[in-house]
Amino acid sequence: MPRTRSTPSAPGPVRLGPDARAALRPAAVGIDPGFWHARRATNAHASIPQGPGLLESAGNLHNLRLAAGKDTGEFRGAYPFVDTDVYKWLEAAAWQLAQTPDDDLAGEVDRIVALVAAAQQPDGYLNTWFQLVKGGERYQDLRWGHELYCAGHLIQAAVAHHRATGSSELLDVAVRFADHIDSVFGPPGSGRPIDGIDGHPEVETALVELYRETGERRYLDLAAYFVDRYGHGLLGGEAYCQDRVPLREATNVEGHAVRQLYLLAGATDLATETGDAELRAVGERLWRAMTATKTHLTGGLGAHHDEEDFGDPYELPTERAYCETCAAIASIQWSWRMALLTGEARYSDLIERTLYNGFLAGVSLDGERWLYVNPLQVRDGHTDTGGDQSARRTRWFRCACCPPNAMRLLASLEHYLASGDDTGLQIHQYVSGLYTAEGIAVRAETDYPWHGTIRLTVEETPADRPWTLSLRVPQWCRDIRVRCAGQPYDSSASEGWLRLERTWSPGDEVVVELTLEPRLTAADPRVDAVRGCAAIERGPLVYCLEQVDHPGGGLDDIVLDPTRPLAVKHRPDLLGGVTTVVAAGRRRDIPDHGWWPYTATDTTTDAPDDGDPVELTAIPYYAWANREDGGMRVWLPLS
Amino acid sequence: MPRTRSTPSAPGPVRLGPDARAALRPAAVGIDPGFWHARRATNAHASIPQGPGLLESAGNLHNLRLAAGKDTGEFRGAYPFVDTDVYKWLEAAAWQLAQTPDDDLAGEVDRIVALVAAAQQPDGYLNTWFQLVKGGERYQDLRWGHELYCAGHLIQAAVAHHRATGSSELLDVAVRFADHIDSVFGPPGSGRPIDGIDGHPEVETALVELYRETGERRYLDLAAYFVDRYGHGLLGGEAYCQDRVPLREATNVEGHAVRQLYLLAGATDLATETGDAELRAVGERLWRAMTATKTHLTGGLGAHHDEEDFGDPYELPTERAYCETCAAIASIQWSWRMALLTGEARYSDLIERTLYNGFLAGVSLDGERWLYVNPLQVRDGHTDTGGDQSARRTRWFRCACCPPNAMRLLASLEHYLASGDDTGLQIHQYVSGLYTAEGIAVRAETDYPWHGTIRLTVEETPADRPWTLSLRVPQWCRDIRVRCAGQPYDSSASEGWLRLERTWSPGDEVVVELTLEPRLTAADPRVDAVRGCAAIERGPLVYCLEQVDHPGGGLDDIVLDPTRPLAVKHRPDLLGGVTTVVAAGRRRDIPDHGWWPYTATDTTTDAPDDGDPVELTAIPYYAWANREDGGMRVWLPLS
Repeated sequence: MPRTRSTPSAPGPVRLGPDARAALRPAAVGIDPGFWHARRATNAHASIPQGPGLLESAGNLHNLRLAAGKDTGEFRGAYPFVDTDVYKWLEAAAWQLAQTPDDDLAGEVDRIVALVAAAQQPDGYLNTWFQLVKGGERYQDLRWGHELYCAGHLIQAAVAHHRATGSSELLDVAVRFADHIDSVFGPPGSGRPIDGIDGHPEVETALVELYRETGERRYLDLAAYFVDRYGHGLLGGEAYCQDRVPLREATNVEGHAVRQLYLLAGATDLATETGDAELRAVGERLWRAMTATKTHLTGGLGAHHDEEDFGDPYELPTERAYCETCAAIASIQWSWRMALLTGEARYSDLIERTLYNGFLAGVSLDGERWLYVNPLQVRDGHTDTGGDQSARRTRWFRCACCPPNAMRLLASLEHYLASGDDTGLQIHQYVSGLYTAEGIAVRAETDYPWHGTIRLTVEETPADRPWTLSLRVPQWCRDIRVRCAGQPYDSSASEGWLRLERTWSPGDEVVVELTLEPRLTAADPRVDAVRGCAAIERGPLVYCLEQVDHPGGGLDDIVLDPTRPLAVKHRPDLLGGVTTVVAAGRRRDIPDHGWWPYTATDTTTDAPDDGDPVELTAIPYYAWANREDGGMRVWLPLS
Repeated sequence: MPRTRSTPSAPGPVRLGPDARAALRPAAVGIDPGFWHARRATNAHASIPQGPGLLESAGNLHNLRLAAGKDTGEFRGAYPFVDTDVYKWLEAAAWQLAQTPDDDLAGEVDRIVALVAAAQQPDGYLNTWFQLVKGGERYQDLRWGHELYCAGHLIQAAVAHHRATGSSELLDVAVRFADHIDSVFGPPGSGRPIDGIDGHPEVETALVELYRETGERRYLDLAAYFVDRYGHGLLGGEAYCQDRVPLREATNVEGHAVRQLYLLAGATDLATETGDAELRAVGERLWRAMTATKTHLTGGLGAHHDEEDFGDPYELPTERAYCETCAAIASIQWSWRMALLTGEARYSDLIERTLYNGFLAGVSLDGERWLYVNPLQVRDGHTDTGGDQSARRTRWFRCACCPPNAMRLLASLEHYLASGDDTGLQIHQYVSGLYTAEGIAVRAETDYPWHGTIRLTVEETPADRPWTLSLRVPQWCRDIRVRCAGQPYDSSASEGWLRLERTWSPGDEVVVELTLEPRLTAADPRVDAVRGCAAIERGPLVYCLEQVDHPGGGLDDIVLDPTRPLAVKHRPDLLGGVTTVVAAGRRRDIPDHGWWPYTATDTTTDAPDDGDPVELTAIPYYAWANREDGGMRVWLPLS
């Protein structure tokens, strides 16, 4: 068990307003050494410090200097939203500074904040693409221009910077831009010149945060206006832009996954701050439809490369799973808002699954390379097309949305783990660290996800009244045992929460045991892509096979024997230390069908149980693509 | 049996040159009433006559008038290759005129040919996009400009026009453009200013045809130069543009399917005319790799919407099968060239499969609406995105490559059915009509593909020497019986050919019986997308289920019972008259998994054999999407 101790961390995203109708209040966790502490250390020491250099070489900072009149040359970059890479990095750096003072990082932040401020136009507008390339064409291509999307990320960075440092330098920039937008956009009859929305939602959730940070109600109203103008054909009616159907009438998620999820995060923020029951019901309905019909096992979202689209219900391909890293992040952001709004555990179930799998796979173990898409299969004989959608980790992307997005999530991760309410403290995710809320402090010690024991010690407690320690029982968990003060405790959960109510004393100890038996998982039969397959899982982790662990043939002719037991082997030497799962399989002898691979079923002689036995070594999915190139499979055909 | 008689048709595409090294010589068939006669009548009476009006309303003819200085306004259309829609229509109309005089059609052709000629620039260059929109930027964006691609379709139209009408008006235009290209493009040291290739191959096969039509060897040399310059990074090295690897080194088809196939057609033409054995081996190798690992059951090609790409080996999704109609056409064109070059029957096996399924599905039964992509599944709850890739048939496309391409194939279909050589006549495809070659004429009478009987009568024969009537035994066929002059004949085939050698007399009759028992077909187990499924086939036809025939639920919860017999029912009332296959299935009772569709295998209670029996009515795949919208499935999960 780690012995280094942290204190609760600084403020983070989603600071609820005074009138918020949320069931739960976000709480802070000071993360101690362990699984996520290590990933966050890599984020702090490798990923974030490299940001300015990468933003310099990709041209983003150059563009800001040009817009500020401090340099000469041409706009660089392929997209009108390249400024957001800077904003997301600033947000990540701000959350990082909130936890750990760092003069070098603070200096970089100051330098870049000053550059952003200098690039802003006198009326508050700020977008280097339009200022440098499309002068005079503001807001004329809302479908593709991304101007409000960029404003949204600027606002989020500014809120983070203000919360983290107390400086209002960037917040002032954001307020000026928001006020400018508020003077331009509004419904017919409002006196504003443009009734419009951005092709890429994002400003909505940002404006709610700006309302939370400044108390200025106009920003909340503006967010509400934008949310309800989608789906009325202002952008041509395309699902891609969330414009096919009004959100309040939607029955499932659709279109570009990140756009849909950011819009839903904003709508959920609105429901939280305004008590809009219909909008809350929209969130509940679409979240359930999404998870039940359009979510990959890893929590990854998006089934089409084309248009980065959600696809149809149960259309969940493996090799073409898009599962953009940004969509995983957006899913976590939205689900956390739903968790706070409703108090229900399932939202944090999805967060856990996404964090450990669909999200974390996007970041290399060394924090220096990234995946934009996160497929569940790379075939034998795959021809890598290179580019942003490569199955090889990439130093930086042409469309570099994912890396700084991952940085900001990791840097603020402690704000997605716990909550409090009038009954006490809720632990949503199990990490080593100090959970604090409502005058309560509970220390957790665990080697989760490798081991299932979580030791919880009450460090601070109100002296003379009972309160409830609520523990999320993971959706995947089939056996949980709890001892409280040395005695077995009734471990029956209700709606995903195990609630321990008593009058606590400092030093009281609760020991939770989550069974981490590896298991085989099958999909709903309508998920055609994985018919006849199983996936290996253990605890919150999805596992996969990689070619490098299986010499002597490809992966696509391997079948798994589900009747043989799965064995667990911890490998401290492998991939930064992982627990592997060892399974029994065979290499199929596939008959040579000649030039035509389709055969009458009554002449099919495939005998999948034939072939040589092969020991299968499954690694956690998040760690794939950190060694040599080659095939990978999550779903394994059964013999 | 139909009794109307046709005579052999006019010239068509692929007229071999005097030095060609082909094993077979193309032969003509006069098609009598029957399956293809009806489709060609629709092409002649509905599709082709509507072409000029559609090309007018889409702006293509307007662009030519602008380029000719005969009109004012702006270029219309979204792509630099819109001229090819005109050229492909002209080619279709020319082949049609070669068969049936038609003053109205001839008048339209004359008018549009004159317009094309008037739009040509003095030095021979012709491309309305560049002339009108990108003045002075010729050949500066070969990756996307499509200038040589457009030239290729112009040349093919001109060759067709010349062969069909004897007029050299369009051929002169094509020759001037080809001479211009020949003066501009060439290898370093050739004195030509540009060493380059077009991002979209097509001009190569066209130049070989121009060589065949004019006898001018320079066009053959130019085609050879282009073919061998792919794969050397001249276009940035992308597989999309066929530029990742030289064709002679390739091991499988890759990149944009139509581009790959047109390039291979050109390479095969070259191998045929020059005797280049290496290029022939390339064709054999890539054709086999394509069919064995990258071809859908329908003959459709292309697994990715994104980049219209072939995808990886065995990556053959159902709902996202791209299977562009143009790729099916290109596959037929290439395979026919391979069939002539090698004399091997398997190339015509693929042609048959593609004609009846992957190609024909692209054309509506009324000849007035089209599919650009031809998926093998439309899910319950599918959200149609509209646009060119819609699963609903569309009157015309923004990128209207497919409709006139289908018209030109149907109008020249009789040239893909038979061949001759020194041994006699080869029948590749079974249609009612008169097969003629080498002084031989054989009349075929059949209701194929609905019935398996083909009655062949010798009408003309050399008097005093034996010759061989070669009949392709379809790859799908498990039982063929032949009676020759009333006597059973040894029906053992060799390499797909049943060869009947004898001295024939006029009136000799051969009766072929192909067993048309419906069958269930399974895929190689590496085709993950259809694991645990079967498809219904009968003869050359792939079948599918449509929602409209299965009220009371969706298609995605239906399973097929493979132990129950398949029944055949001819339905003259349905879809223009089709033979349906009736099968036994059930509607699965799929348990409600709540919000998460993945379950531990040992708790899975799915019992796919439960559920209500349902009679399944399968229709030929080519006829789908001609009634109301709804789900469709080719591959059916087995109970």
